[in-house]
Amino acid sequence: MLTMATNGTIPKEQWAMVVEKTGGRTVDAACVYKQIPVPVPGPDEVLINIKYSGVCHTDLHAMMGDWPLPVKMPLVGGHEGAGVVVAVGELVKDLKVGDLAGIKWLNGSCMACGFCRQADEPLCGEPRLSGYTVDGTFQQYAIGKAAHVARIPQGTDLKAVAPVLCAGITVYKGIKESGIRAGQYIAIVGAGGGLGSLALQYAKAMGLQAIAIDGGEEKGATCKTLGAAAYVDFMTSKDLVAEVKAATPDGLGPHAVLLLAVNEKPFQQATEYVRSRGTVVCIGLPANAYLKAGVFDFVTRMITIKGSYVGNRQDTAEALEFYSKGLIQAPFQVVGLSQLNEVYQKMHGGQIVGRYVVDTSC
Amino acid sequence: MLTMATNGTIPKEQWAMVVEKTGGRTVDAACVYKQIPVPVPGPDEVLINIKYSGVCHTDLHAMMGDWPLPVKMPLVGGHEGAGVVVAVGELVKDLKVGDLAGIKWLNGSCMACGFCRQADEPLCGEPRLSGYTVDGTFQQYAIGKAAHVARIPQGTDLKAVAPVLCAGITVYKGIKESGIRAGQYIAIVGAGGGLGSLALQYAKAMGLQAIAIDGGEEKGATCKTLGAAAYVDFMTSKDLVAEVKAATPDGLGPHAVLLLAVNEKPFQQATEYVRSRGTVVCIGLPANAYLKAGVFDFVTRMITIKGSYVGNRQDTAEALEFYSKGLIQAPFQVVGLSQLNEVYQKMHGGQIVGRYVVDTSC
Amino acid sequence: MLTMATNGTIPKEQWAMVVEKTGGRTVDAACVYKQIPVPVPGPDEVLINIKYSGVCHTDLHAMMGDWPLPVKMPLVGGHEGAGVVVAVGELVKDLKVGDLAGIKWLNGSCMACGFCRQADEPLCGEPRLSGYTVDGTFQQYAIGKAAHVARIPQGTDLKAVAPVLCAGITVYKGIKESGIRAGQYIAIVGAGGGLGSLALQYAKAMGLQAIAIDGGEEKGATCKTLGAAAYVDFMTSKDLVAEVKAATPDGLGPHAVLLLAVNEKPFQQATEYVRSRGTVVCIGLPANAYLKAGVFDFVTRMITIKGSYVGNRQDTAEALEFYSKGLIQAPFQVVGLSQLNEVYQKMHGGQIVGRYVVDTSC
Amino acid sequence: MLTMATNGTIPKEQWAMVVEKTGGRTVDAACVYKQIPVPVPGPDEVLINIKYSGVCHTDLHAMMGDWPLPVKMPLVGGHEGAGVVVAVGELVKDLKVGDLAGIKWLNGSCMACGFCRQADEPLCGEPRLSGYTVDGTFQQYAIGKAAHVARIPQGTDLKAVAPVLCAGITVYKGIKESGIRAGQYIAIVGAGGGLGSLALQYAKAMGLQAIAIDGGEEKGATCKTLGAAAYVDFMTSKDLVAEVKAATPDGLGPHAVLLLAVNEKPFQQATEYVRSRGTVVCIGLPANAYLKAGVFDFVTRMITIKGSYVGNRQDTAEALEFYSKGLIQAPFQVVGLSQLNEVYQKMHGGQIVGRYVVDTSC
Repeated sequence: MLTMATNGTIPKEQWAMVVEKTGGRTVDAACVYKQIPVPVPGPDEVLINIKYSGVCHTDLHAMMGDWPLPVKMPLVGGHEGAGVVVAVGELVKDLKVGDLAGIKWLNGSCMACGFCRQADEPLCGEPRLSGYTVDGTFQQYAIGKAAHVARIPQGTDLKAVAPVLCAGITVYKGIKESGIRAGQYIAIVGAGGGLGSLALQYAKAMGLQAIAIDGGEEKGATCKTLGAAAYVDFMTSKDLVAEVKAATPDGLGPHAVLLLAVNEKPFQQATEYVRSRGTVVCIGLPANAYLKAGVFDFVTRMITIKGSYVGNRQDTAEALEFYSKGLIQAPFQVVGLSQLNEVYQKMHGGQIVGRYVVDTSC
Repeated sequence: MLTMATNGTIPKEQWAMVVEKTGGRTVDAACVYKQIPVPVPGPDEVLINIKYSGVCHTDLHAMMGDWPLPVKMPLVGGHEGAGVVVAVGELVKDLKVGDLAGIKWLNGSCMACGFCRQADEPLCGEPRLSGYTVDGTFQQYAIGKAAHVARIPQGTDLKAVAPVLCAGITVYKGIKESGIRAGQYIAIVGAGGGLGSLALQYAKAMGLQAIAIDGGEEKGATCKTLGAAAYVDFMTSKDLVAEVKAATPDGLGPHAVLLLAVNEKPFQQATEYVRSRGTVVCIGLPANAYLKAGVFDFVTRMITIKGSYVGNRQDTAEALEFYSKGLIQAPFQVVGLSQLNEVYQKMHGGQIVGRYVVDTSC
Repeated sequence: MLTMATNGTIPKEQWAMVVEKTGGRTVDAACVYKQIPVPVPGPDEVLINIKYSGVCHTDLHAMMGDWPLPVKMPLVGGHEGAGVVVAVGELVKDLKVGDLAGIKWLNGSCMACGFCRQADEPLCGEPRLSGYTVDGTFQQYAIGKAAHVARIPQGTDLKAVAPVLCAGITVYKGIKESGIRAGQYIAIVGAGGGLGSLALQYAKAMGLQAIAIDGGEEKGATCKTLGAAAYVDFMTSKDLVAEVKAATPDGLGPHAVLLLAVNEKPFQQATEYVRSRGTVVCIGLPANAYLKAGVFDFVTRMITIKGSYVGNRQDTAEALEFYSKGLIQAPFQVVGLSQLNEVYQKMHGGQIVGRYVVDTSC
Repeated sequence: MLTMATNGTIPKEQWAMVVEKTGGRTVDAACVYKQIPVPVPGPDEVLINIKYSGVCHTDLHAMMGDWPLPVKMPLVGGHEGAGVVVAVGELVKDLKVGDLAGIKWLNGSCMACGFCRQADEPLCGEPRLSGYTVDGTFQQYAIGKAAHVARIPQGTDLKAVAPVLCAGITVYKGIKESGIRAGQYIAIVGAGGGLGSLALQYAKAMGLQAIAIDGGEEKGATCKTLGAAAYVDFMTSKDLVAEVKAATPDGLGPHAVLLLAVNEKPFQQATEYVRSRGTVVCIGLPANAYLKAGVFDFVTRMITIKGSYVGNRQDTAEALEFYSKGLIQAPFQVVGLSQLNEVYQKMHGGQIVGRYVVDTSC
């Protein structure tokens, strides 16, 4: 039994971008723009009229079947969807029709296992992953488990908040996991990219001193604008380890490192410049990459390396609260949902600066 | 100005085992048993009449010049020395002549840097290392910085407590660093060895469930006797990862892993069986070893790898308090200090079970 | 839609002890033993055939309307119920008919607010409280929200585990909240009572040194049997503060204090004997009691006072795991559910030693 | 043996403000401006040519003998002194003649007890308190234990930094002790006063949202200027508890409260508006004040009350680092040391806004 939408009827059919099989196609024709049925939410679910959805590299990986984890087929991708609640299941108490809400990578979890009990839902052994194991946000109406749906304050610009729902939460979580305190130094590897530019803004809002690491003058300028205390250019640096350490007042290196890079090398270098007792947080997922660190130095300097996956429900709320206070801005451009294949093509070619957001109405 | 010993005169000369140069000798004749002057403590130091000293692998490494860190020469090795205070510097208030005290690996530190200020003295950039950068405990009278000297309760058996001063503190620290809570599971790799058998006892005293990992039936029996909840034999196991996970009630693996092994493989395998969100603590220092872990699994399971070096002054006090309550026993045998070369020879040949302790009186 | 019980039909009617109105009666005739309908679980609920239920002081308070919080009427009390799952709602995945399960004080919570998101369900603003705002366990068939139902391992003695479901979890939680570490000292005020005797056992299992505080020789003997390192008798002590401090090796007092007392005085005295930087955890709820502490001493000794309510879902699982390992035993005696009024009468008269457990079959 | 000052001879005599006996005088003639010998530092001490010293209420209390703790007599008060190192003891390695340095309330501690070992030096049982148990900074040359002397970066304005050495460190420490995270809300009681205005600035620099509580429009304006997110005026508020809660987006109240007030009432009110699971940090020391809180609400909302005393050595370094980045400014006015009695007189009359700093040269 559903509480039905009050301002108009929910349609039976909707437009979506559908991946019909993994691989076997070129990237530019991977999804088909077509009409599919609007799904019906269960007792603990909500139906959201998705207005905008960010496009993430993970969507490309999912569609191409790049990862060991099996993908639902046919698939509607997308996991950064922002919209309006149009129906709520009978058990849902704190969301009502008309509320703004978002769907993120972790669409649902069992809510009963040891991980869920300790607010580590992303580690649940029975996850529902939007646009991967369940249909995602590249459609006009998507379902989310009410417990996991992001609550978005009234008045929020839905197209602007969409990228925060994955990229923003992820970097915010990573910073929290580092255990760093206000006033301390954090090196951000890949600071000029999509995740990195959000990380710089969260770091600043959290009272941290950020050392941006990336390549090229243009990225350096961006990083400085976003509040980086220092910029180290790996393309021109003669001794990156020494330069990063020199960017801290006592020369002992940053208290934490956030690895957002998409190649392997920084994963094997960060332990060299992090301060003794410091923490290296791995977030980026370069294909087939390995962490590597010499045991002697690692032990005698008491270094920590930590993996940080996506945020939990509380991290989501907190990351959005920073956004709502106007402290976080993610550059983005909007195209119609029907043009998603072209976005993938650009992404595949490495031509994207900032985030693409699709408008589901066209 | 020193407060002088009340019960007898401190001699001018004493017996010691002295390494006169690194390398260039066979192990069995590496040290020379000879008379050397008794050192004079400074204002913030104490002079301890060492009664017994444990012999650690580190002593062998130091003597052979195995590590990159430069070694004092000529050198009196040893860093597990227990004895009686015979003189105290003018600034020393809480130690007096006649107190029992111990000298450990970290003989002194600057006490003023950021690490010392935060009770991470082992990470101080200006450490004094017993038997490495300053003379150690293979002599009858040794100096320790008062701030760092281990306070040993009256009535303690000095030959039995000696091995606790390095091995005991180190494993206790490692368990603390893991962040594990009472009731949880900890895998101890190398549980049947010298460090491991102490780790099993500390784990039990701390309310933990230990999964012992080592090779051979005899070691398995020892581990069970020392309180291990399970034993996994790497020599006979068909699937070590599966077996370790199966030793936890829910099959998700231990919450923490303590790596005491002296070879590299476990450092690359522990992340496979540790529970998601779990912590792998590295303590052992196999020569030229590397940590290695696949990034994808590491990130999505939010695993932590942490280096743990020797304990700080508080860890020392706590580790000794467990010992004083009778909860920790380390098997050992006593020989005369003059026989140290023979101990090294056995150690080099891998023939030692338990700890050797030298009696400085003969 | 329910998955129905396989081994027999769920009856329509059942026996229960029902409070028909608050107050207005004597304690000994407060509940009526009568037949009422068996409730039907919703999609996220389970129906449990309660076999045994512990009787807690809170039940007496609820029934008498002692607390400001409004009580459901008519009411089936009870919140320490252990039994067998006989029906599960359609959304419930990890519980099935035939599983053992328990119902505790927190029957359900919203699972979506900031407290629930951070595993602080007991602080949820929309709690369902068993035997208080929803019917509890003094009936043969009771409903629990699946997310909150305690998972009990097969083979557990249901009458013995019942008291652990409230008293055990509560004291275990309190010890965790104190932040104490293995090897440290915890004073337990009211150690000889029902909560206290459980607290002593949890403390021991967690590697702590317990200083038991209570009145009388008999209680002292019990405390020693349960593993207390020391016993301080408030009835005979000339200087309780001094005696408690003297029970720690360095005389500085315990690192934590657990207040299980049902009178006010200890709440105003504990800050005097707790160690500087120590934590006083308040658990007991004496009527109209106030905490009180002098600001000067409190600030300059950096003391912490903390309230600890019932455990969350993870605390429940952990507290039960200690029980399952045989480390916790609660003395109890069993009577028929129909005799509940007599139990209340004894409770009211302060005549109960250990816990009463009612058998719902008679 | 001292390393002597290189730029000129240290004089034998110096000017100081000396309290010759406790009480027995009026405030305005409590200290005598006279010449006294320059003290000689020991092996672990430094001699600092104090240039400026802040004047704190504690100085007034000390001089009047207001507190139970015995005061050295005759006494040179003062514990916010900033100056230049002119001599260092033989054991001092990381400070040299010419360095800038500060003397704070905790002049020295044993550095060996359990508190000192865990970086809780302020709790040491053998503290040396500047201007209380040892002579302080109302003289031209003062001694500090090298381990405790605040390291001040070259180029710092010594008169401006003086008040940070006590007031700044204390509030920074209190915020840290609250356990609050960036983005959360902290209520600051007494936000418009000397401590409060520093607390507002630290809170902002740490990414917190501050709710300022104080009395009067002028103070409200100051608080807003210093970055407060909201201001609650206790002089005009009809329902302070409701207003403070309403200043948080979800109405549940601040995550932490910092009590800087000098009267008792807020100590008994803060637990009413702090969020469940929140922490009330007590810093202010109103004479003879008591904390008081109802047990029922305190327990069921799991509130924490915590005393926070002065910062340790690491807090000192961190608080100064925020200052050095230009994030903290304390309003102050400078008068000659010889005018100290007049400052006390104003202080006694409650006429001081901001901090008075004395110039020791006149």
